[in-house]
This record gives sequence, structure tokens and C-alpha cells, in this order.
Amino acid sequence: MNKIDPAFACPLPLTQHSKVLMAHGGGGQMMMDLVDQLFRAAFDSPELRTRHDGAVLAVPAGTLAMSTDSYVIKPLFFPGGDIGSLAINGTVNDLAMCGARPLCLSVAFILEEGLPLETLWRVALSMRAAADRAGTRIVTGDTKVVERGHGDGVYINTTGIGFVASGHRISPTGIRAGDAILISGDVGRHGMAVLGQRESLSFKSPIKSDCAPLVAPVMELLERGVRVHCLRDATRGGLAAALNETATDSRLGLECDQAAIPVDEAVGEVCEILGLDPLHIANEGCFIAFVDPSDADAALKILKKHNPRAARIGSATTGEAGSVVLRTEIGGWRVLEAPYGELLPRIC
Amino acid sequence: MNKIDPAFACPLPLTQHSKVLMAHGGGGQMMMDLVDQLFRAAFDSPELRTRHDGAVLAVPAGTLAMSTDSYVIKPLFFPGGDIGSLAINGTVNDLAMCGARPLCLSVAFILEEGLPLETLWRVALSMRAAADRAGTRIVTGDTKVVERGHGDGVYINTTGIGFVASGHRISPTGIRAGDAILISGDVGRHGMAVLGQRESLSFKSPIKSDCAPLVAPVMELLERGVRVHCLRDATRGGLAAALNETATDSRLGLECDQAAIPVDEAVGEVCEILGLDPLHIANEGCFIAFVDPSDADAALKILKKHNPRAARIGSATTGEAGSVVLRTEIGGWRVLEAPYGELLPRIC
Repeated sequence: MNKIDPAFACPLPLTQHSKVLMAHGGGGQMMMDLVDQLFRAAFDSPELRTRHDGAVLAVPAGTLAMSTDSYVIKPLFFPGGDIGSLAINGTVNDLAMCGARPLCLSVAFILEEGLPLETLWRVALSMRAAADRAGTRIVTGDTKVVERGHGDGVYINTTGIGFVASGHRISPTGIRAGDAILISGDVGRHGMAVLGQRESLSFKSPIKSDCAPLVAPVMELLERGVRVHCLRDATRGGLAAALNETATDSRLGLECDQAAIPVDEAVGEVCEILGLDPLHIANEGCFIAFVDPSDADAALKILKKHNPRAARIGSATTGEAGSVVLRTEIGGWRVLEAPYGELLPRIC
Repeated sequence: MNKIDPAFACPLPLTQHSKVLMAHGGGGQMMMDLVDQLFRAAFDSPELRTRHDGAVLAVPAGTLAMSTDSYVIKPLFFPGGDIGSLAINGTVNDLAMCGARPLCLSVAFILEEGLPLETLWRVALSMRAAADRAGTRIVTGDTKVVERGHGDGVYINTTGIGFVASGHRISPTGIRAGDAILISGDVGRHGMAVLGQRESLSFKSPIKSDCAPLVAPVMELLERGVRVHCLRDATRGGLAAALNETATDSRLGLECDQAAIPVDEAVGEVCEILGLDPLHIANEGCFIAFVDPSDADAALKILKKHNPRAARIGSATTGEAGSVVLRTEIGGWRVLEAPYGELLPRIC
């Protein structure tokens, strides 16, 4: 969106200290200065200007969605994003998966003593840019500091609220046998980009995270009257976890066509070398939609406008409740298990 | 409230593992089991039962308050509370300071690999009990796990929303010269209780944190028609920070009478020995209220019903904007400075 690196466009306003000190979390003047000169400067919103402990805003009657996530990704910066853009997009996307447009966000930082303030400033500017892009704003926040060695630079919590688009009820229990399963883009890029950065792997072709807000495609589906029954972003645990969770919660079977699932060529190659399944790798800008089968073509057309790699990948069935089966490329069937535990830790 | 230790009343439901593993944050089956068997069991609410990424609930039109805090207190358990009750009360109280009754809360955990699940269960039950006591519920959550040594057992974020009592506008800019300043209880107990526990100090008389929800006294003030102009809880930085922040934000002077500020005898003695000022020590169940002077007596009567140590401690004045002065016990005046930086780190 913005081709200028904001870290160059806006120099760090705080100059008295170059690193986070324990005193920045002490509740005194130093914390006030950090909040005023760094966070309020980066996030500026009418609610933050009131300098209250909480934000106060007028809302209409409606169906409110609320979602929270803490972000502990390592490293803080990776190809295609950073902990700041991830913390905004991740929570915005959880709201979108409820069918809600984000209204506002809270942001809470746990800073590690010694974190360069320049790093924190880059993260804060990235959060502001991501919030602008997703059409939302930060209205309240919190700052804590922990001793050196008791964190990883910065952990961020974002919590968002938004209103569900009128007349829609989107939930795993809304899925019906026969529903088409669509995917909004190719899978596996976020996890592989973070892994590559962390392990200093050099890929033949660079792999960039898909980290992005999903508000626009979701809202277009809903506004154009597509009968969307359930939405789920394929984050931790990848597409396999998203499919298995929705299968379990809907008490239906799901059948997908492996060849239809879009995987970036570079991601596929690296996964093969490392023995990883791209369907188990986390995404941060990709979701599955369960839609009424008669709306599937219209829905796919909308998704393709936002991402040409969107695809129809399968259907909900009256097969074994909670099971996910894949038609393999050679025409057989295999069960797609949910990952059990840790695959790539700390990817969000 | 509850004399039975809930850890004994409700045995830990998860038995497969005794400690948090990295895999508990991996997005797979182990994370699902932890969420289902521990968090959903402890927090049970209609919204959590939908098993969605976010909570969805119907709300009326009104003025919404939103507040967030992360909790990094060390140690996790202290006389009078624990990180769980603190995480609920702290956020509930920030909403109350906006004049709002809490509607619901999100909870996000950052767990350290190796944390005993028994400890997490005790914390979760304590959160549930505190939420019940404050008349609110947990509707959505998140779990992350970081490697051993990168956390302190557990960090918790809670974010709350609530509706501001109709017709009230409570903010530092609402304070007027002449407003009476009331305090809801004695100061300094939370910080001293945590310090005592952390440093294994043995006090002559035990000091218990004042950690408690402040919804009831605030709502009674508002419902009985007290003209409340501003509320502020005296957490990090203590009463001194709360007074200085409101003085700055209201652009008024504040005058308080040191003899009128209630300090527990044991807290006063220990502070004197350690060279600490109880007005700089954090509280977690104590707030100041700026009320119309003609309502001060009625307001104090209400506050005293909830805590007999509530007191009228001073007034807002047309004196130097942003300054806080104390009439000392021998009749002189001294400026009460905000603490600059760290006094007692990690007390919330």
C-alpha cells in the first residue's frame, strides 16, 4: 500500500533513552512519556486523546463480535510483515471470520527491558499502517515491562470489537451437507516465511508471508448476498486444523480435492525438502468459506477478484462426522488429520 | 468471599500431561484439549460454547467503554489474590472508572513451557470466581506458549467492554475547581503485599492486597445521582500518580490533606522502615472520585458503606494547573510529585 518505509518517513520521537528500561513500565512520568511520545504519536485516535484508562464510544444496537489474540512471533520482522502488522491483521481477521467489520482495537504491550525504542517505533508505525489499511483504529492500550531475559523483545495483545453484518449468522453449526468449501488464496506462505527468516534458510525463490486483512473479501461476500454459512481463517495448524475444527464443530464430514488446493511453487518445493505438509503450515491472510452450493460460483468470482489464487476445494458431506478426507492427485483418498501438537512454534 | 480453596474443590481435569508443553500452543489437538478441558471448563459461558474464534453477542445502542491490561505480576500468588483475580479485577475496575458496568471480558494467556497445569487451573478458577463476583463473564480467549525461560509462568491479558451508565460523562476534563476529592479506601496495601511475598519479608501484622472489584461502589454513586465528574483507580504509581495524572489532564490544581488519607497501620510502619512513601505504592481496589462539592457528603456515605476507610481527602482548585499539593500533618504544604520511574516493578 505504502511504498515508503514508515521508519524512515517518521523518525523516533523519544530521544532521552534508546532502550526500554524497567522504569518505562512503572506507572510514573517515564511511562507517561513513552505512552505520549511513542504510542499516542503512532496510533493517534480521538479516544486515545482523552487520556482515560479506557476508551468510550457511542455504538448502535446490533450484534457485536469480540476477539482477542496475543502475538509472540519470533523473529519480530519477517518477509511480508512484522509482529505489528500481524497483531492487527490477526485480530481483524478473527472479527471478519465472525462476519464483522472491525470497529476498534485495544493494544497491550509486554516489553522486554533492553528492547531498542527504535524497534518499538517501527512496530508501532507498522500497526498504525495495518489498522488504517483494515479500516479500523486503536482506541486504548496498556504497557508493561519485564526484566531482560523474561520476554522476547515484545509480546503484543490486540483485542477487537466490530459489528456483524446485518442478517448474517456465521458459525460452524451453520454448515450444511452439500455446502461448497472455498479457499481465499494459496496456503503455507506465512509459516514458511517465518521459518526461513528464523533459521536463515535461503530459498531459491523468496517466500513472503500472506499476512493481510481479510475484511474486504468477507464484506463483499456478505454484501452481495452470498449465503455464507461459516468462515475460518487457516492460521496455527494451517488448512488441516481449520478443516478438522470445522468438521468437528459442524458434526459433518468434509471432502476436499488435493489438486484444487493452491500451494505456491516455492512453498511446495521447500516443504518437500523439509518433509513438511503445506496443509499444516500457518497462514495469516487466507480463509475457508462454507457457502450454499448454489452461490459457490458467485462467491468464487468475488474471492478471485481479491486474490486470483482463490479456489473451490471441496464440500461438506453426510460422511463420517468430524472427518476430513482428501482426494489425492492419483485419485485415491486419504484422511487429513489435524496436526497433533507443535509443528513450527512461535509463528504468531 | 469463598472460604473453600477452589483448587481443592475442583480437581484439575487434564491428566495426560502435568506441565505446559510447547505443543499446547501449536494450534493442533493438544491445544484444543487444553482449551476444552481447562479453560472452557473453568470459564464456561454461552459464547465460549459456540467454539468460534470470536464471541458474538447482541448489544443495545449506548456508550460503550473498552479497556485492556496485561498482567505480569511476580509472584503469581500473593496475600489477598493472585494473577487471575488481579487480571479480572484490574480490567473490571478500568471499566468502572469510565462509569461502565462490565458486560464481558476476553482473556489471553502467554504460558511458559513447563508451567504446572495445576497452577494454571488454580489461576483459571480464581479468574472465574472473580468474574462471577464482578458480575461479568469471559466470552473469548487465546493461548500462546513460549519456551522455558522466555516468560514467567503465565502472563495474562484481559480486555473488557461495558456500557457507561446512562447520562454520565466521566473524564479528567470533567473535573471543575471546587470538586471534592474522595478516596474509596486505604492506600498502599497491594504493592506492599506483593513486595512482602516476593522478598519473603515477614511483617509484624500480615498485609493483604486490596485487590477487589470496584463496580458496586461506582454504580451506587452513579445510580443515586451523585454528580461524579471523574474516577481514577490508584494502581501503578499509587495515589500520587492518580492525583498527578488527573491534575495534568484537568489543567487544575489539586489540594489534599495528608492526615485525611487513610493508610493501614502495618503498611505505614513497613513503608517507614523501608523508606517508601505509601502514596507511591500501587493499589488494586481503591479509587479516587471527583464529585460536585454539594454531593460530597452523600457520596462519602455511599463509599463508606462499601469500605469504612473511605474518606474525603481534598479538592480541585484554581491553583497551578497540573500541581498536587499536600497539607502536611504539621500544617505546612508540600508538592506531591508523581513517581518518576520504577518503584516496585511487576506489581500488576
